[in-house]
Amino acid sequence: MSMVGRDIYDVDVFSVEEVYRLFELTKHFKGILDRRVKKVPALRGVTVCTAFFENSTRTKISFDLAAKRLGADTVAFSASSSSLKKGESLKDTILTLDAMGIDLYVVRHSEPGTPQFIKKYTRAIVINAGDGFHAHPTQALLDNYTIWEKKGKIEGLRISIIGDIQHSRVVRSNIKLMKMLGAKVTVCGPKTLMPLDIEKSGVRVSYDINEGIDGADVVMGLRMQLERQTSGLFPTLEEYHKLYGITKERLTLAKPDVIFMHPGPMNRGVEVDDHVADFERSVVQEQVTNGEAARMALLYLVLGGRMDE
Amino acid sequence: MSMVGRDIYDVDVFSVEEVYRLFELTKHFKGILDRRVKKVPALRGVTVCTAFFENSTRTKISFDLAAKRLGADTVAFSASSSSLKKGESLKDTILTLDAMGIDLYVVRHSEPGTPQFIKKYTRAIVINAGDGFHAHPTQALLDNYTIWEKKGKIEGLRISIIGDIQHSRVVRSNIKLMKMLGAKVTVCGPKTLMPLDIEKSGVRVSYDINEGIDGADVVMGLRMQLERQTSGLFPTLEEYHKLYGITKERLTLAKPDVIFMHPGPMNRGVEVDDHVADFERSVVQEQVTNGEAARMALLYLVLGGRMDE
Amino acid sequence: MSMVGRDIYDVDVFSVEEVYRLFELTKHFKGILDRRVKKVPALRGVTVCTAFFENSTRTKISFDLAAKRLGADTVAFSASSSSLKKGESLKDTILTLDAMGIDLYVVRHSEPGTPQFIKKYTRAIVINAGDGFHAHPTQALLDNYTIWEKKGKIEGLRISIIGDIQHSRVVRSNIKLMKMLGAKVTVCGPKTLMPLDIEKSGVRVSYDINEGIDGADVVMGLRMQLERQTSGLFPTLEEYHKLYGITKERLTLAKPDVIFMHPGPMNRGVEVDDHVADFERSVVQEQVTNGEAARMALLYLVLGGRMDE
Repeated sequence: MSMVGRDIYDVDVFSVEEVYRLFELTKHFKGILDRRVKKVPALRGVTVCTAFFENSTRTKISFDLAAKRLGADTVAFSASSSSLKKGESLKDTILTLDAMGIDLYVVRHSEPGTPQFIKKYTRAIVINAGDGFHAHPTQALLDNYTIWEKKGKIEGLRISIIGDIQHSRVVRSNIKLMKMLGAKVTVCGPKTLMPLDIEKSGVRVSYDINEGIDGADVVMGLRMQLERQTSGLFPTLEEYHKLYGITKERLTLAKPDVIFMHPGPMNRGVEVDDHVADFERSVVQEQVTNGEAARMALLYLVLGGRMDE
Repeated sequence: MSMVGRDIYDVDVFSVEEVYRLFELTKHFKGILDRRVKKVPALRGVTVCTAFFENSTRTKISFDLAAKRLGADTVAFSASSSSLKKGESLKDTILTLDAMGIDLYVVRHSEPGTPQFIKKYTRAIVINAGDGFHAHPTQALLDNYTIWEKKGKIEGLRISIIGDIQHSRVVRSNIKLMKMLGAKVTVCGPKTLMPLDIEKSGVRVSYDINEGIDGADVVMGLRMQLERQTSGLFPTLEEYHKLYGITKERLTLAKPDVIFMHPGPMNRGVEVDDHVADFERSVVQEQVTNGEAARMALLYLVLGGRMDE
Repeated sequence: MSMVGRDIYDVDVFSVEEVYRLFELTKHFKGILDRRVKKVPALRGVTVCTAFFENSTRTKISFDLAAKRLGADTVAFSASSSSLKKGESLKDTILTLDAMGIDLYVVRHSEPGTPQFIKKYTRAIVINAGDGFHAHPTQALLDNYTIWEKKGKIEGLRISIIGDIQHSRVVRSNIKLMKMLGAKVTVCGPKTLMPLDIEKSGVRVSYDINEGIDGADVVMGLRMQLERQTSGLFPTLEEYHKLYGITKERLTLAKPDVIFMHPGPMNRGVEVDDHVADFERSVVQEQVTNGEAARMALLYLVLGGRMDE
């Protein structure tokens, strides 16, 4: 089925077959990025708006470059959620941007469901680039692509996700996509950072990091909120590191060919040691490169790009 | 007469004939914006600088996209008027930008006359995108284009502008252009927000909204300054809404085919009701689209664009 | 020798022959900038990242436009040095940007040596756009190009640099390049703003402005830090102006065909009078234009641009 015009709220807008079509195209674009002339004018005449209501340099630059490399024009709309409330409703902002001829919005917002809210007022395509703790579908795409590329498959793999499960849109989208593709997912972290109904999503839950990592093909760390250090909440960053930090020693419990993943930016010395962050089977930087290619693939498919253009 | 190289301080730099030439070209570019391949490389090699010394996401994005869609490069210079004062004179800023090869400046500044001041130091073309309460010529162009498109003509139409007349550059430029094109303009608002010498501009003045709207072909609302709410000034936003808010009921006093306009962003519940903001003859979003096309037309004409390029 | 792939930390990465090759290419690009169609698609497919950890509108816009005019895509990464410390190490930031396929970084940072630090983590080319008080090679290139263009040669010229020598990366790089090219350099300023070991760099030192300017072919003013005014340090801006301000009268001590230079932005009334800033042999604006062309030349050579593309 054609993906042209499809809004990407979360990974469940894709069929398994479509995910693999995205993977193949991601691989293709990654090959182009490796060569000198990286420009594919497949989306010339298209205007992409990055509408970020939360700070995020990384994801914004990634989408911006992906669109530019496909020949699209990009425009950035930035506003903190609060300043927007004061003067102009989100609805009117979108109606305005829309009237300027935007073809696709990349939306990040602290409020879950904002991409769907925006869709009510626009004929443009909407891609969710993170809505509160809810979903982050392109992160899940690039993570699963990375696993697929490194391991040759996803089905049957044991994937352990360690950290603050509760406040992570990355985890939510990843669990959905990993389950769709047949992986066995373990989530591991302190009880205070574990959602109550997490078992319902079909994952194994562990509160012990040794048990959580044991036998894993893939270990994924998550970013801890640095505000915890001074908040008096349990665990503090120091306690967290002692109990759940991914260290070189702990990683020996995983399969010998385990890969280490992290959505970035990493807090070295908190959720991950320098040794792990920089070790040879860490694929953290490759995740970023794959994110670039995966976003190109997604933009290409939903906007109906043409290779021969 | 050719418009190439002309500086656009206010609408009076145009003859009536030139305004209609701009309207025809705006219509042409609007047609291109509607199609998929929106790019017209008529201004390749041209560099446009948006020099905004006041915050304005909407107008800045509109000009930025208009220039990009014509194939021009754009560069943004942003500075609050105050920070500029500290370290570097506006004169030196312009001399510097100019030396980098800027072909055209789009200028917004809180000080009336800034575009003319800038012109003293640059060989580039200057377009005023709002200088204090003085003028906003491209807003007037897009507003009058919208009326022309919707009503088929402007001559003889009854246009009512409701709100804070005193603090509005939108009104000043609009009155000039509407009078040039033969419309009958009524301005309506509280006495405390009405300029003393307003009659001299050839408009009818009303302090009663029912009288102001009565028989209008076009009703244009203006944005109220939200600071009034806590300032203790008369009228507060609440009082304003009661006395001058454009409501569904009040709009029934206008002609049956009245259109509602607003330069945006709207304060729903203050100068305009949700019903009016969203009703079927509100052309607020179309104003934005027309603004995009009108700015393309203006850039094209003053920069000497070539269609066949 | 080919400059392709070379990192530009300071001017000493060039041979004298290479500097003159850069000058010739700068002249060529300056000619293109003067014509209407300024675009040379010699770097299509290349991605340039301006990574500015200090505020600098001028240099950032100059590099951004230089890259765009050569057909490259540009992406801006902005962060204050402090905010970066909080959440993510500079190392991880660069690893991340690098993974997105950046070909060249233009780096400004308050910490000397940051470009070299960044290079440890990237395969991309690194150009120093100012690191602390250490170096600013492209400023030295454009300054020396300007002298070469105006005077026909640099060898044997008497160049006087007046002002805060100690806190100036512009001076450090300029002294190196001017000495390489055979100029006789005098630095002049108050003792409190003079580095202790300045004689080692082969320049004449003077603490008297009349002596400093006497017989100069070129007089270069430097920007004073405006914070001095309220800091209680000697000299204050007022004292500075009295003792070292470059005035019309003092400039008569130089050669009759002296040119006046300043890296900008100028503090009129502090290090330089209006008369001098605006006089007919001030080349301050031309320095900016030359900076644009010199940065195009440098990007072209280190990125291996192709004219026929």
